Amino acid sequence: MITTDIAVIGAGPVGLFAIFEAGLLKMRCHLIDYLPQVGGQLSEIYPKKPIYDIPGYPSVLAQELIDNLMEQAKPFHPTFTLGERIEGLEKRGEADFVLTTNMGTVIEAKVVVIAGGLGCFEPRKPAVENLENFENGKGVNYMILDPEKYRDQKMVIAGGGDSALDWTIYLAEVCSELTLVHRSESFRGAPDSVAKVMALAESGKINLILNSNLQAVHGTDKLEKVQIVQNRTMEKTVVEADHLIPLFGLSPKLGPIEDWNLNINKSAIEVNVDDYSTNIPGIYAIGDINTYTNKLKLILCGFHEAALMSHSAYSYMNPGVKYTMKYTTVNGVSEF
Amino acid sequence: MITTDIAVIGAGPVGLFAIFEAGLLKMRCHLIDYLPQVGGQLSEIYPKKPIYDIPGYPSVLAQELIDNLMEQAKPFHPTFTLGERIEGLEKRGEADFVLTTNMGTVIEAKVVVIAGGLGCFEPRKPAVENLENFENGKGVNYMILDPEKYRDQKMVIAGGGDSALDWTIYLAEVCSELTLVHRSESFRGAPDSVAKVMALAESGKINLILNSNLQAVHGTDKLEKVQIVQNRTMEKTVVEADHLIPLFGLSPKLGPIEDWNLNINKSAIEVNVDDYSTNIPGIYAIGDINTYTNKLKLILCGFHEAALMSHSAYSYMNPGVKYTMKYTTVNGVSEF
Repeated sequence: MITTDIAVIGAGPVGLFAIFEAGLLKMRCHLIDYLPQVGGQLSEIYPKKPIYDIPGYPSVLAQELIDNLMEQAKPFHPTFTLGERIEGLEKRGEADFVLTTNMGTVIEAKVVVIAGGLGCFEPRKPAVENLENFENGKGVNYMILDPEKYRDQKMVIAGGGDSALDWTIYLAEVCSELTLVHRSESFRGAPDSVAKVMALAESGKINLILNSNLQAVHGTDKLEKVQIVQNRTMEKTVVEADHLIPLFGLSPKLGPIEDWNLNINKSAIEVNVDDYSTNIPGIYAIGDINTYTNKLKLILCGFHEAALMSHSAYSYMNPGVKYTMKYTTVNGVSEF
Repeated sequence: MITTDIAVIGAGPVGLFAIFEAGLLKMRCHLIDYLPQVGGQLSEIYPKKPIYDIPGYPSVLAQELIDNLMEQAKPFHPTFTLGERIEGLEKRGEADFVLTTNMGTVIEAKVVVIAGGLGCFEPRKPAVENLENFENGKGVNYMILDPEKYRDQKMVIAGGGDSALDWTIYLAEVCSELTLVHRSESFRGAPDSVAKVMALAESGKINLILNSNLQAVHGTDKLEKVQIVQNRTMEKTVVEADHLIPLFGLSPKLGPIEDWNLNINKSAIEVNVDDYSTNIPGIYAIGDINTYTNKLKLILCGFHEAALMSHSAYSYMNPGVKYTMKYTTVNGVSEF
């Protein structure tokens, strides 16, 4: 069993900054995230994207911000449980919370901070019958982890955003046959990527099927064929395929947190704006996952919420103890 | 007359970030500060000090943070009135505020944002009779702007902090005679500076008078003599002096803002935590100058306040217009 002062659910930028703010008050944090690495959306979805609205950074790459937040948290020796999802929450006795993950890890904490961003991300799936029969290693995937897996294979990609375009460009050199299916004839992705995909189609390197949708998947043990339908003419095309990867984006889900009797409002946790506490004493929610009057889903707001939450959690854990804030400009940061 | 959307009083880090947040919503800012440069306390008092609690910066020099905030604000073309102090505030007609400075500059704005930090800083003065008779060019100063002014002059410095020590070390080479008076025999300054001052005293380069206070100043048209008294023995020493510079630190004052009928609580402006608005519609207060339940005087909290204030100011300036927030990660920052 892991024992800590504060269990932080979510290791995105706001969860990581909570380590620092809690650390200044000599409280230790243990972070839990379903993703296999820290950084939340920033590391998982757009690590190379510049962010322009972090105060004091005219521009910073998402992953660079995460690396800096990890560096800033370092003096306070945070610990992590990554690649696991919190499933259960229980109050043991008067004070302590006991959290359990889908892998059976147990974490005991005095305070729980939910910094879960938009929740767990689940891929948006197309409405195609029997699609789930070909999931789990039988040809249908919603994320590309190792592109080498697709070398010399027949691939169908569906979608019209940056992910679909970028992977089409990349896999055109890897797959033996590649078909890109898109429901429209205009793309949501970067104009430069659109131009590259068009050029690949013209040179015959890829097969581009526009104004069309996925209609059916066929195969015996594993995927063999993908059936595509033209939106207006209803003309059908059948493409031989070892793999189908619909890239329709990720859809956020609150997950098991929904069952913890927290006040939820439109998939966000209602908090008290004075300290970002929830309706359950000892549980706080900070960052994109919370809601209050005039809430803005900005990382910089989550940083402020982490600071106020930490001072409130300190009072909750140390009732009656008066804390006088020491400024880091005067005292520096003392490791503990 | 200067016309702007938002008049921001105070050009410290929080005032500077307000330019960026307002700019994303296509509102222009004009900043007014009593100091001759932007950056507030950070540039004036501790430009070379590292700050450790700016999110995403394990360490950043105060001036570096200010430079970065200026760079971040650049696409929104802020304008500045520096070295002037806002004295008057008037509401003209239904909507607009008219601000006037001590130098007669007039600024018309739809919204006023007070980001005044701890207020205007005024030097702490020793309790010495007639001291004010020698202010304004007659020998008594509380700040050293141009040390060359004191070349080959007789100088008395009073104080035991970093300013007193640093200027003693510097002016030992400039003045013809230099006396440092300090009420105690231990110093609050850096140990290295203390050692240097002690060495200067031992070598006879300066005259060090410890455990003593300023008692009286004498002169006809201008300062001629400073009388010093030993704390325990009550022994008096009279030192010939062209200049006396008490360096007892700066004390924050709210200044003329106190007379604007804002709700003030212990030298801070009370605000609504939902949008950091004051009791006067159209006037907001952000950063260290405001107060609300659980307020923390942290720069990072001021950044959050600047963001929520900007969205509220947008609604105030554009009643009935619904604004859908565009994320800079998706759209970048458009100059306007």
